[in-house]
Amino acid sequence: MVKVAVLGYGTVGSGVVEVIRTNKEIIKKHTGEDVEVKYVLDLREFEGDPIQEILVHDYDTILKDDEIQVVVEVMGGVEPAHTFVKQALELGKSACTSNKEMVAKHGAELIAIAKEHQCNFFYEASVGGGIPIIRPLLTSLTCDDITEVYGILNGTTNYILTKMNEEGSDFDEVLKEAQDKGYAERNPEADVEGYDACRKIAILSSLICGQQVDYEDVHTEGISKITTHDFAYAKALKASIKLLGVYNKVDGKNYAMVAPMLVSQKSPLYHVNDVFNAIMVHGNMVDDVMFYGRGAGKEATASAVVSDVVECIKNQGSTVPQEWKQEKLTLGDFDSWKHKFLVRVKSEDIDDVNMDAVKAAFGDVMYVRATGIVDEVAFVTKPMTEADFKAAVEGFDNVENTIRLSF
Amino acid sequence: MVKVAVLGYGTVGSGVVEVIRTNKEIIKKHTGEDVEVKYVLDLREFEGDPIQEILVHDYDTILKDDEIQVVVEVMGGVEPAHTFVKQALELGKSACTSNKEMVAKHGAELIAIAKEHQCNFFYEASVGGGIPIIRPLLTSLTCDDITEVYGILNGTTNYILTKMNEEGSDFDEVLKEAQDKGYAERNPEADVEGYDACRKIAILSSLICGQQVDYEDVHTEGISKITTHDFAYAKALKASIKLLGVYNKVDGKNYAMVAPMLVSQKSPLYHVNDVFNAIMVHGNMVDDVMFYGRGAGKEATASAVVSDVVECIKNQGSTVPQEWKQEKLTLGDFDSWKHKFLVRVKSEDIDDVNMDAVKAAFGDVMYVRATGIVDEVAFVTKPMTEADFKAAVEGFDNVENTIRLSF
Repeated sequence: MVKVAVLGYGTVGSGVVEVIRTNKEIIKKHTGEDVEVKYVLDLREFEGDPIQEILVHDYDTILKDDEIQVVVEVMGGVEPAHTFVKQALELGKSACTSNKEMVAKHGAELIAIAKEHQCNFFYEASVGGGIPIIRPLLTSLTCDDITEVYGILNGTTNYILTKMNEEGSDFDEVLKEAQDKGYAERNPEADVEGYDACRKIAILSSLICGQQVDYEDVHTEGISKITTHDFAYAKALKASIKLLGVYNKVDGKNYAMVAPMLVSQKSPLYHVNDVFNAIMVHGNMVDDVMFYGRGAGKEATASAVVSDVVECIKNQGSTVPQEWKQEKLTLGDFDSWKHKFLVRVKSEDIDDVNMDAVKAAFGDVMYVRATGIVDEVAFVTKPMTEADFKAAVEGFDNVENTIRLSF
Repeated sequence: MVKVAVLGYGTVGSGVVEVIRTNKEIIKKHTGEDVEVKYVLDLREFEGDPIQEILVHDYDTILKDDEIQVVVEVMGGVEPAHTFVKQALELGKSACTSNKEMVAKHGAELIAIAKEHQCNFFYEASVGGGIPIIRPLLTSLTCDDITEVYGILNGTTNYILTKMNEEGSDFDEVLKEAQDKGYAERNPEADVEGYDACRKIAILSSLICGQQVDYEDVHTEGISKITTHDFAYAKALKASIKLLGVYNKVDGKNYAMVAPMLVSQKSPLYHVNDVFNAIMVHGNMVDDVMFYGRGAGKEATASAVVSDVVECIKNQGSTVPQEWKQEKLTLGDFDSWKHKFLVRVKSEDIDDVNMDAVKAAFGDVMYVRATGIVDEVAFVTKPMTEADFKAAVEGFDNVENTIRLSF
């Protein structure tokens, strides 16, 4: 019998209890053990909910109980989550979490502490919800030079962009609908401005590089400036627009960003719609591999958390190696990263645009026409550095929007 | 330093040597060890190839060398591969393989022998080529009741079906083209009749059930009877046709088959084209998860094999638990499995078809019209058991083809 404590009885926490109880026999098949939730820690009371029987308000009760082998942290936020996990690991109790903020900030430290105390720290659910991606990176894609990751890492923004694409609706309109349906928070900034995806691509980049990539260093743009006109041009280019977390290794330098990008119909990511997430990984031997599934939601996220609990139990007494050192990795200078860009320029008449000036600033470009748009001229550049592109755009005072291409 | 022997210097074998040598540093990052290929076993000589220096013709040389910790079997075929792997495991040497025939037949036995001798037997590359699917099933999707698997498990047939769909060409024509390009064997039976996919779905079903599913028990149909007319109806149903390996648990019974099926545009599998493979797994908590990548090819397959070598090294001296018992699992009676079917009936005129007779045989059906086809009547049934469907079809002597729906 293995006894587990769950810290936080919110959406994911209640899902974790549900998964452990509902799929008891399956978990036993994989671990050889009965697994029981002995405590749930929450500041609140849950009168009338059977969980009340195992509810505790004081974390010390859990720390002091030698029967507790695994602590599941699903409270969210950096503190006190980080301190709680650290204390558990220092006592040799393994810990699992879905908490991307804490993992992005303290993952490397907690991995080191777990190693020191012959236990494990796992965080599968911190990226891609229910999608297996962390463990495949640690145990499957281990003989490949991983040079690219393109991930749809946030369900809310993918839902909004899917609706904008399918229904031709405006961002504000779709955001409101998503909020009414509970797919977007009342304060949607963390999702729509890309902050959530930023933590996730920082975690993936850290794992791939084996060193700490600080999320504060990751260039991050959201989707709030994307309009129906952008989608019209995407369609003309046989593409769609997705908010991507991108990691890229070029000439030995590591780049990472979050930004809305044009994704070609030919890419499997193009077909990842609604609240689904997917992560495309490119290795020098395996080529493209994609992992797809529900990036959020109670049961899917809890499934990933409990799969970590299962691995903690299977590896009780030893530490599964994880190469993520605390030493900070300096990302390549964002200004030197190259992309192709779609540029939309306001213009009543195509003749108003000085094509010579465009050529002088951007080099050879490919002009694009979108159905129904008459007061703009748009073009796609050749690959340019961010710095060169920025300089070129500054010469034009009527640029409506610019979007990077992922192809 | 870890020393490895590679059995068989064919496509995958030479890929394994290439991956180990090219990505030496990455492998060292994950294992903490230098990995060296000490021997390659092959009956042939490779004059002029540097591999000649480490080539041996006698397997005993490898078995007797205590330095060899991991044996990589990539010869193909059941024997002598099975005997070679067994001998290695009995000496406590771990073994990895890409050999689906051997794994489907002897996987459970070899896992048991590995456990007895504190070593490991891994076979990631036996299903889905470079796609991580075996290890995710064993270590990620471990707290889910897995009720469905739909897999595009064979690259050759997916290439053929993709071309038939895109170009409207006949099966024979596309097969010839695929053979000319080297995507299909001169003797294409194993691929086009579904035998290859059958081994793979048997392996996945065994892993999910934790017991031996014999591939001989898996109902298997190939794609050689699929015509351009079938694709016309697929299009009318907003679907395509894919050769799927299917596992399904219904009312506690386990079913498995390989057959061409209609796949809806709404499914991510619809968009898996050319030689790519993908496996969709449905769990009761995680919902749908899909794994996508190259299902064949030298480097991709070798990448999966070498990722197994990495895990063997990381787990040297202990056995990673794998729940696949030798005890045979009796699949549910195929005749009692339910599907919806597309039925195409030859008919010069729609009035020739006795709709009352159709209703009497199949129950309520939905009639489908396909662009450009005038001499047929087609309909989709409600879910029917295989037995009922077979009986119903027998009453009609002009049935052109029938295809199951996956949606």
